[in-house]
Amino acid sequence: MKGFYQPGHLLFASGDPTRAPLAVYGMPFDGTTSYRPGTRSGPLAIREASTSLEFYSPKQGRELDPERVADLGDLEFPFGNPEAVLGRIDDAVTGLAKQGRFPLGLGGEHLVTLGAIRALARVHPDLSIVQLDAHTDLRDAYEGEKLSHATVIRRCQDLLGPGRIYQFGIRSGTREEFEAAAFLSSDLSRLEEAIHRIGNGPAYLTVDIDVFDPAYAPGTGTPEPGGISFRELEAALPHLTGPRWIGADIVEVSPGWDPTGRTPVLAAKLLRELIIVFQKGA
Amino acid sequence: MKGFYQPGHLLFASGDPTRAPLAVYGMPFDGTTSYRPGTRSGPLAIREASTSLEFYSPKQGRELDPERVADLGDLEFPFGNPEAVLGRIDDAVTGLAKQGRFPLGLGGEHLVTLGAIRALARVHPDLSIVQLDAHTDLRDAYEGEKLSHATVIRRCQDLLGPGRIYQFGIRSGTREEFEAAAFLSSDLSRLEEAIHRIGNGPAYLTVDIDVFDPAYAPGTGTPEPGGISFRELEAALPHLTGPRWIGADIVEVSPGWDPTGRTPVLAAKLLRELIIVFQKGA
Amino acid sequence: MKGFYQPGHLLFASGDPTRAPLAVYGMPFDGTTSYRPGTRSGPLAIREASTSLEFYSPKQGRELDPERVADLGDLEFPFGNPEAVLGRIDDAVTGLAKQGRFPLGLGGEHLVTLGAIRALARVHPDLSIVQLDAHTDLRDAYEGEKLSHATVIRRCQDLLGPGRIYQFGIRSGTREEFEAAAFLSSDLSRLEEAIHRIGNGPAYLTVDIDVFDPAYAPGTGTPEPGGISFRELEAALPHLTGPRWIGADIVEVSPGWDPTGRTPVLAAKLLRELIIVFQKGA
Amino acid sequence: MKGFYQPGHLLFASGDPTRAPLAVYGMPFDGTTSYRPGTRSGPLAIREASTSLEFYSPKQGRELDPERVADLGDLEFPFGNPEAVLGRIDDAVTGLAKQGRFPLGLGGEHLVTLGAIRALARVHPDLSIVQLDAHTDLRDAYEGEKLSHATVIRRCQDLLGPGRIYQFGIRSGTREEFEAAAFLSSDLSRLEEAIHRIGNGPAYLTVDIDVFDPAYAPGTGTPEPGGISFRELEAALPHLTGPRWIGADIVEVSPGWDPTGRTPVLAAKLLRELIIVFQKGA
Amino acid sequence: MKGFYQPGHLLFASGDPTRAPLAVYGMPFDGTTSYRPGTRSGPLAIREASTSLEFYSPKQGRELDPERVADLGDLEFPFGNPEAVLGRIDDAVTGLAKQGRFPLGLGGEHLVTLGAIRALARVHPDLSIVQLDAHTDLRDAYEGEKLSHATVIRRCQDLLGPGRIYQFGIRSGTREEFEAAAFLSSDLSRLEEAIHRIGNGPAYLTVDIDVFDPAYAPGTGTPEPGGISFRELEAALPHLTGPRWIGADIVEVSPGWDPTGRTPVLAAKLLRELIIVFQKGA
Amino acid sequence: MKGFYQPGHLLFASGDPTRAPLAVYGMPFDGTTSYRPGTRSGPLAIREASTSLEFYSPKQGRELDPERVADLGDLEFPFGNPEAVLGRIDDAVTGLAKQGRFPLGLGGEHLVTLGAIRALARVHPDLSIVQLDAHTDLRDAYEGEKLSHATVIRRCQDLLGPGRIYQFGIRSGTREEFEAAAFLSSDLSRLEEAIHRIGNGPAYLTVDIDVFDPAYAPGTGTPEPGGISFRELEAALPHLTGPRWIGADIVEVSPGWDPTGRTPVLAAKLLRELIIVFQKGA
Repeated sequence: MKGFYQPGHLLFASGDPTRAPLAVYGMPFDGTTSYRPGTRSGPLAIREASTSLEFYSPKQGRELDPERVADLGDLEFPFGNPEAVLGRIDDAVTGLAKQGRFPLGLGGEHLVTLGAIRALARVHPDLSIVQLDAHTDLRDAYEGEKLSHATVIRRCQDLLGPGRIYQFGIRSGTREEFEAAAFLSSDLSRLEEAIHRIGNGPAYLTVDIDVFDPAYAPGTGTPEPGGISFRELEAALPHLTGPRWIGADIVEVSPGWDPTGRTPVLAAKLLRELIIVFQKGA
Repeated sequence: MKGFYQPGHLLFASGDPTRAPLAVYGMPFDGTTSYRPGTRSGPLAIREASTSLEFYSPKQGRELDPERVADLGDLEFPFGNPEAVLGRIDDAVTGLAKQGRFPLGLGGEHLVTLGAIRALARVHPDLSIVQLDAHTDLRDAYEGEKLSHATVIRRCQDLLGPGRIYQFGIRSGTREEFEAAAFLSSDLSRLEEAIHRIGNGPAYLTVDIDVFDPAYAPGTGTPEPGGISFRELEAALPHLTGPRWIGADIVEVSPGWDPTGRTPVLAAKLLRELIIVFQKGA
Repeated sequence: MKGFYQPGHLLFASGDPTRAPLAVYGMPFDGTTSYRPGTRSGPLAIREASTSLEFYSPKQGRELDPERVADLGDLEFPFGNPEAVLGRIDDAVTGLAKQGRFPLGLGGEHLVTLGAIRALARVHPDLSIVQLDAHTDLRDAYEGEKLSHATVIRRCQDLLGPGRIYQFGIRSGTREEFEAAAFLSSDLSRLEEAIHRIGNGPAYLTVDIDVFDPAYAPGTGTPEPGGISFRELEAALPHLTGPRWIGADIVEVSPGWDPTGRTPVLAAKLLRELIIVFQKGA
Repeated sequence: MKGFYQPGHLLFASGDPTRAPLAVYGMPFDGTTSYRPGTRSGPLAIREASTSLEFYSPKQGRELDPERVADLGDLEFPFGNPEAVLGRIDDAVTGLAKQGRFPLGLGGEHLVTLGAIRALARVHPDLSIVQLDAHTDLRDAYEGEKLSHATVIRRCQDLLGPGRIYQFGIRSGTREEFEAAAFLSSDLSRLEEAIHRIGNGPAYLTVDIDVFDPAYAPGTGTPEPGGISFRELEAALPHLTGPRWIGADIVEVSPGWDPTGRTPVLAAKLLRELIIVFQKGA
Repeated sequence: MKGFYQPGHLLFASGDPTRAPLAVYGMPFDGTTSYRPGTRSGPLAIREASTSLEFYSPKQGRELDPERVADLGDLEFPFGNPEAVLGRIDDAVTGLAKQGRFPLGLGGEHLVTLGAIRALARVHPDLSIVQLDAHTDLRDAYEGEKLSHATVIRRCQDLLGPGRIYQFGIRSGTREEFEAAAFLSSDLSRLEEAIHRIGNGPAYLTVDIDVFDPAYAPGTGTPEPGGISFRELEAALPHLTGPRWIGADIVEVSPGWDPTGRTPVLAAKLLRELIIVFQKGA
Repeated sequence: MKGFYQPGHLLFASGDPTRAPLAVYGMPFDGTTSYRPGTRSGPLAIREASTSLEFYSPKQGRELDPERVADLGDLEFPFGNPEAVLGRIDDAVTGLAKQGRFPLGLGGEHLVTLGAIRALARVHPDLSIVQLDAHTDLRDAYEGEKLSHATVIRRCQDLLGPGRIYQFGIRSGTREEFEAAAFLSSDLSRLEEAIHRIGNGPAYLTVDIDVFDPAYAPGTGTPEPGGISFRELEAALPHLTGPRWIGADIVEVSPGWDPTGRTPVLAAKLLRELIIVFQKGA
């Protein structure tokens, strides 16, 4: 497709790129990363890792349907220009939304989420965001910049207004960020409550892979000890089936920091589980 | 010679190679591996890692007796010929069984287990298998091949007949594999029940290192998130003392995928704990 | 400062090196390491990792005050002479103690703790030691040597007399070492009891990073499966506020064994949490 | 295309997969590897590395034409069955040859060359082979097996008859292998002479990446010190324009052994230079 | 100093930061990198590597004088904003130039050179640039962006006018870039000629570490086979003593891509040799 | 046992450990290393790498005779006590010398050479040393210590008297060390001259692997750019056949710093070439 290139292929996606209801696309950008760059290689690594997995989820007792999933490839980005990068994501997601398709992005650093939210908030002004993350990402500016992986959720909040962000797994931030958060939890225990509050409204799920403890997902830009395990995520899957999801992403996988390769495998397994969740709802 | 030691030798094994009752041997084969090769280096890595450990197990409150353990070294294999590889394992285990010695193999990919089972099933047609693994390995064929790391337990089932395989820690497979399994659990909780069923019959223990979560054992060919921890294994050790064990193996350690070296250390510690279990029973 | 050099800077330390009440210093020595060397690079790696963290601890609900912390840099050591190394540590800690400042050392191998204890035991003959570690380190000699990472706590015991060592997280040692231990636990569950026994007496906290399971802290000289998680440590932090701490160290971080870099990050986060604990008490 | 899958894309290839005159295809097989496995990942790594290069070769003063090159993807192989693997390569190359297209394979271990030679020798019984390699690969059997990376050129010789193999860069083998070689050189100095002897006959070029010194191409299964540099290869390029090439391959790139990634980059640059050579001749 | 922070210390620099005639400073920016990020860690790695070297150069038969060198630390940069980064470099170099001090920068990606050239070209409009590099970096735009590691020398050319750029070691670029270059050589053989042309005019030396073959310097963002060796550089050192140097930099060291650590060591040794050259001229 | 082999054994050594004329032994000590530890793992890595090589040397046109070589294993060392380590080496070499056997040691750091020289100088007071190395190692003390990898050749000089040390490949040291050297060359060009001077006197060959450029042998403690290539060493082999060699060592292989594994392979190939040289003389 125009503006995309194909650097590998996702096992779970054999659907028609122009029509499959769920469209996976990569956002290989890490230009504002402050600690350890490398998330631009995340989408390809997740695709490669997917080949070691099955379509069947024993936890959910269901199989993913690859014919209803397409892998569009990665967006082409100009490096060194975050605003232009966000513009290309916005365009792509807007295009998918017009077709009534579900955009499922693979990062890239967390800033890329803002591109998708800009596109979807235009269509769904009542959008809620469910964020799984180690960091609040609620700073107003970071090292003087308004657009950054550390400010992305604040920018989303600026767009959506108060009370729309639900944060889980959070264990790092300034005191000010923690005080500014409307709904924040250090693990997944309050997920059911949040889903209940969101009700039938449209919702976007963004998973920063660093929500997992670095023991489980070391390949990320800013590892933060004290996170959740994969089993905790699996246990929370039933709670995720509630909302009317209209988009999602998995971000901050930085494969170069994990020579064992288990971070992309975890991300790919998470992707499979989420696709099954989204297909169940459809 | 005095003052010298031979690196590449298992710390736990100072017994006579021709007579010690428990014989450790390596099976450095990874020729049917589909995702990430490298398990051929497993046996040497486990030996090297053993030198960082003690003979004493605080969990079991017992010491391993190295004089009753021998390290035979590694079997010589022709690469690219799985059937010939299995033949050499079968011969070696048959030889040990004739001497009344306990064969404890170090893999290598999981297919090697079939060589040992062929040898032991001839002597013990009522053999049961206790399998700790992330994957069912119950496929009938894999990419067209009958002999593969993904079909090995199915081949064992063909030999032993129905109801002889007890599977633990399983969290990946096709829907068909899960439905075909006779006794399958995603963790170790039903271990006691299985040991009870086996009773006094002869049993073989095969541990695929990927039964552990990749956080604990990343150095393996097909890491699968959501596995058990080492503490869960330690807690289950008392249940393992029941059966009449007649052989065992630890497979799928692939040290090249784990630059931290903790996977071989974990395997070596597991090996120590199992040797103490087997020596207790003897 | 004399005898020190500056190989990087700790984020948490902007205080005056000659006067700040808490003085962090590096001890880059690994000369008696038996299994995997490399802890000499620990102090620099912890400093670098600190830049990815915040001053605020959500768990404790408090902020670290960097103006009251100084980073003195690393001590200059002669390689190949453990006794001379201990002498330099002893001198440095004695100097800090005379100024009424709190010495917080970063190892280096565990033997360095002995240098600090020699200095502090002269001032505080009733000193207790709280040790978080995978290994007892209670051997009388190791490969014929009295001064070693494996004998360091025994040497401390020789100095302080019986009943002054409280050991947590211990899961490896000879049967003799386990029997010789006065107060030993395989996890942190008895920490409250120990703190109660120590009461208001002076205490030194030594954390061998291998107290954490290798899943959480693989970058260490002698990884030992079955350890605690970072969350368990966080849960125990409230118990640590009791004693009159007069010094502390974090040792055995060996960054070269952890290409993911999460071990130095964990050590830096632990350092932040401990500094907040020590500042709370002050 | 049938029998192929696409795990990444070569920068140099934007031509129609069904018609472009030069067809690149991957052969991700390493099942007979004796020392260090991992060449199955070679094709994908070369594709990824190609994105860092230009189409223009300053050495040759020419540009590659990507429209006349297609990337067919990788062949699907059954693991553990070398004969079946060779059959699939034979089929694919036979198909390309029938279309009058130039097959340019990416390995995989060196045994894969035999599949292509079987296909091409049927059409061109007077085929010559130009081999750049560190090892003679002239053994009759290796560890008892006839089909192996160490016997592949001997098997080709069996097919083509005496005097058809020209070997360059060779610096390892048994005394017997060296004595059996018809035309063998330890570097590239006799390349012109060989090309002259081949004259206008059909020729196949096989480059084992280990012909380069491990300083230049460490990511390979059997590194052998004393090899050529990339500049020596560049200097020899003009000699390569002579023969009537009808096929080629680059094999034994094993990216996992080279965390610096320079081996796939070197292979990709070599691929570019060779494509320009082949396009010049066309 | 204001705007700088100290993440390590250069062995060669014990001079007063506010006055030493040669001022080393780091530019940890890699925001426009297109292939493999990580050069932001270059300055610290070069500093650490310097500790393994001596002050004495056997090749030049001279010793470096560390009292006449200062290490200012690294500039603080906003990520994601290349123009702002260049502004900070410009300010710092302008400040040094006003004091009559020699700025010697450590990158970071090659774009940082533009910041220094902007500052120095204001003072020396007749400035020449001697560039050692694998790539021309003469593109007008790269992926739509004017400011990029691939356009930096073109931007310098825009500033300085035609005929001021002397390029060595160049072996990659588009045909257009090669045709646009005024003085370009694939190795160092024409260095003497260039130095002769520059005569007594002011000159700036920029060394992109990828001028060395990846065998010698694999730790870089865009490794390009076919480069020079360290010995070739040493042999060219006498030619470098001619011009009136007024500034220099070493860029594109990306330590994360070289686990052997020899790239930072090579850069540190190059830095020592260059400082001796610059001190000889002073 | 039949069908088994012992991993961790030198391929070239199948001779009787108590009688074979050439005895290879490991010295896994790195206790005085100043920059990057890890050479203790050198001997095992060289043994493992040897299995990828042949017995035949095309360069020398001769085969190694493994029956006349024995692998004694590694010496047991107390860590942290360099004097005791040297004592054990002295004892072992003295024992071999008494039997009229040729000691060929594998390091470990360079200090170990002193143990062998002490033993041999007692028997051969007119001993000469041929040293291939990047560093002079002629310091009188290093960080205050007399026994160190940086002082070892000076200590040998103290024992043997002036004019007995011939140094090749040297490219690092203080000005004083260079002035103190009696016979020093930056490459191998004067090797023939030195061998001529030594004449028929007894000689010891010590090869510090860092004599090779880090491009060829990055796995070492103190990599120094500008060294020799493996081909230069091969070209010098004929000159080495002259003297009456009575012992040799290869030291400073530090495999952990070279994930590509080519350094141990190079060392193993060098070992093979040297054994053939020594066997030719015998």
